Amino acid sequence: MQEFVRQPSISQTGEGVKECAELLASYFKDLGCREVNLVPQKYAPVVYAEYDVGANKTVIIYMMYDVQPAEDVELWRVPPFEGKIVEMAPFKKVLMARGAVNSKGPLVAFLNALEAVRQVDESPVNLIFVAEGEEERGSVSMPRFVREYAHKLRKADAVYFAFSCQDQNGLAEPVLGSEGLLYIELETNGAYWGRGPTEFGVHGALKLIIDSPAWRHIKMLSSLVSEDGNRVMVKGWYDDIKVPTKEDLRLLKKGYRKSTPAAKVFDPEPMKQALKIKTLIDDVTDKEEIIKRVSFGTSFNLDGIYGGWTGPGSKTFVPHMVTSKHNIRFVPDQKLNGLFRKIRAHLDEKGYRDVKLRKVDGYPWALASHKSAIAEATYAMFEQFGVKYAIYPPVASVQRFSPAWPAYVFAGKPLELPIIGGGLGHGGRAHSPNEYYVIEGVKGRYGRVYGLAGAEKSMAAVLYNYAGKGPGKIPKLLREAK
Amino acid sequence: MQEFVRQPSISQTGEGVKECAELLASYFKDLGCREVNLVPQKYAPVVYAEYDVGANKTVIIYMMYDVQPAEDVELWRVPPFEGKIVEMAPFKKVLMARGAVNSKGPLVAFLNALEAVRQVDESPVNLIFVAEGEEERGSVSMPRFVREYAHKLRKADAVYFAFSCQDQNGLAEPVLGSEGLLYIELETNGAYWGRGPTEFGVHGALKLIIDSPAWRHIKMLSSLVSEDGNRVMVKGWYDDIKVPTKEDLRLLKKGYRKSTPAAKVFDPEPMKQALKIKTLIDDVTDKEEIIKRVSFGTSFNLDGIYGGWTGPGSKTFVPHMVTSKHNIRFVPDQKLNGLFRKIRAHLDEKGYRDVKLRKVDGYPWALASHKSAIAEATYAMFEQFGVKYAIYPPVASVQRFSPAWPAYVFAGKPLELPIIGGGLGHGGRAHSPNEYYVIEGVKGRYGRVYGLAGAEKSMAAVLYNYAGKGPGKIPKLLREAK
Repeated sequence: MQEFVRQPSISQTGEGVKECAELLASYFKDLGCREVNLVPQKYAPVVYAEYDVGANKTVIIYMMYDVQPAEDVELWRVPPFEGKIVEMAPFKKVLMARGAVNSKGPLVAFLNALEAVRQVDESPVNLIFVAEGEEERGSVSMPRFVREYAHKLRKADAVYFAFSCQDQNGLAEPVLGSEGLLYIELETNGAYWGRGPTEFGVHGALKLIIDSPAWRHIKMLSSLVSEDGNRVMVKGWYDDIKVPTKEDLRLLKKGYRKSTPAAKVFDPEPMKQALKIKTLIDDVTDKEEIIKRVSFGTSFNLDGIYGGWTGPGSKTFVPHMVTSKHNIRFVPDQKLNGLFRKIRAHLDEKGYRDVKLRKVDGYPWALASHKSAIAEATYAMFEQFGVKYAIYPPVASVQRFSPAWPAYVFAGKPLELPIIGGGLGHGGRAHSPNEYYVIEGVKGRYGRVYGLAGAEKSMAAVLYNYAGKGPGKIPKLLREAK
Repeated sequence: MQEFVRQPSISQTGEGVKECAELLASYFKDLGCREVNLVPQKYAPVVYAEYDVGANKTVIIYMMYDVQPAEDVELWRVPPFEGKIVEMAPFKKVLMARGAVNSKGPLVAFLNALEAVRQVDESPVNLIFVAEGEEERGSVSMPRFVREYAHKLRKADAVYFAFSCQDQNGLAEPVLGSEGLLYIELETNGAYWGRGPTEFGVHGALKLIIDSPAWRHIKMLSSLVSEDGNRVMVKGWYDDIKVPTKEDLRLLKKGYRKSTPAAKVFDPEPMKQALKIKTLIDDVTDKEEIIKRVSFGTSFNLDGIYGGWTGPGSKTFVPHMVTSKHNIRFVPDQKLNGLFRKIRAHLDEKGYRDVKLRKVDGYPWALASHKSAIAEATYAMFEQFGVKYAIYPPVASVQRFSPAWPAYVFAGKPLELPIIGGGLGHGGRAHSPNEYYVIEGVKGRYGRVYGLAGAEKSMAAVLYNYAGKGPGKIPKLLREAK
């Protein structure tokens, strides 16, 4: 795990991505995978591998080996790519590194699990590994990859994403589907506008007699959201929202199987503390309301903005362009292209026909049944390991973990496979400084917060459960998790 | 001149500033200056030098040796610090370099002029050189320097800024005073706001349940200016404006001495063509109206903005802070501190008490009489060299050259010296790519557009005129300008 996080694989910049893919391929080969391919994609190859034991059932294991940048290195306790093991109360040992929880730690946990299984038994199911290196770029190549590999992927009966889904109280929160993501750039430029500086920035004193593309960008952005920045002012934005359904609300209030209704156990405080967030939107404190907002809500974020003189001091300058970046989250039945068109229509109607709107990436939401066999196998594992679990409506973003995994490429056409994500184990601060993954677990309020060994065993248990080799059939060695 | 522009001296970053100051000091020593001091200031030393010939009159020569950054190197025809001589129609030879016109070219022209004078005569006046290296940082140290050196500077009778003030038609546009400049930064930060991310940016999906300091910054900025970005919406912003006066309007309409009324000769087209600007604010085309806006107007510019993820791709991110930079131009009787307080009051009143407002630098406007002896000496030179000239109201920003020179430190207390800026010669694109200074002149519509030799001779002529050694007393060699 340390070796794997020490190999950077920053998909936004390309740094180390190829080397990381090759390292992962070598792991698959060492495990005895039959077919290990680096399948080239737009930014980073998919590492594809098959592990066929002639079992009745076949499970696709979805993985991601890319990570976010860690340019804010001065905010880290340890260098982000050194794979340091540190103490972080209440945990005696955590791996602190970029990618520790999202998602190299859990990825290696699964590989370790398979290696352990092979030493005492054999995998109870056939495995197909699909490890992408573009998750942090919106999994842009995954739809095409899935179409091209559909003839192989169709052999599978289910998809499992072996990430660690416990919070720091031990509560397990598996993911079913995923919300939709649309990532755009907006650019205001004197060249398109025909006013102000059109090719390069000019002396700041000229503002007295020329228009400003920069101020135009501010006014344009301001038109997109309400005064508090929280409601999208684009016409028709909320029209197609069909969630929550009655079944969503029943799941939320009553739970399913032995799960605990989410509102009873959901606690935003650990997330708030870890991320230094003091107050939620609209000062909301009611837990069910928070869950509803993350499960059924839509957002238009301002991820970044840049233009003009951004260095030190006081260069006086009328910039000819400003660019901003935005991630948009959406839910059933909002459509990615529909929202994109509505933004364009808003800009045109408000007089910003010249403002460039570019789609950087995006994918639709995915709904997955919470009653599939692979989901049941996962719930059974939680019960076997004595941890409470809560099932959120399919597109919930509750997890501190990136929720926008590309569930849709498996749950949607052409595969339409049942899908769930969730193993034991815990980590946090994905995309933030001091990202961590727990190596030595502790007792938690909702069951043990499992460390690495427990995470590995839980993942093995899901496979055994799914193969119909329930608790009794799981080798004793694997059951003794720590 | 080539040697001098090859030495970077970027005051915003500090690059080469010290080396450039030392180089300039060596020039002063070579000229025979008696006292040459590098006087340490906040960012860059003032190079102070005295050249005393026992004459009746003493003139302070104001100079600036710092330049703007040239980070947009890909937009340049030549590397900005190589001092290349190139053809640039209609000019056979221009020096193309950062600092060529603003203001290393004219600075060296004056030094050359003095060297030439000494070979055939002696300087007709005593000279005190004050060369600052912080002009592009708002001349932040100049007020203190002037106070500290007041006992020496008081010996002077006038201040002359030897820059090249011809446009590309040959029209000379001397500067008298300067407009006021206030440079501020605005920062919206979750740490001050207490909402959204407070210490570092977090995962973009969290926008569903947290507030956004970035959107808050956009809304705050949007409140500062009108929909078109051109009118300042801060309460009382325009209250104290006392220009134009009757005398301002008389000068504008009738001119003074043999000057041509500005509206008759002012042509915004060369500036628009050079800077790739197609339309002025409000589509204004009336020349007198344009002159009034640059002479008597105030502006609140957005010089730069940055925050969040500004790299490639689609990092989803809720930033905890956004910063923007703004230069503000103001005129009599608007007060620097008064405007600063009005901005603060506006923010507080609009609910942005937490938004940080920082003064980066600034200085007040300066008014200087257009009838002083040093001004008359300059007008006489224009007449001797056969070029038409236009006198703009004191705080006009018409020149393509940076108008915000710190005239106020000499024109205001404690020195209250008469002041003018203007020699012959032409250059352009200050602060922009392909900045240039004309080496070989051409015939122009309003008289010869003088090259380097003419610029040098014109500066010498101003000194002779000022010393009462009018046309007849100027050595013949110096009169034959090209």
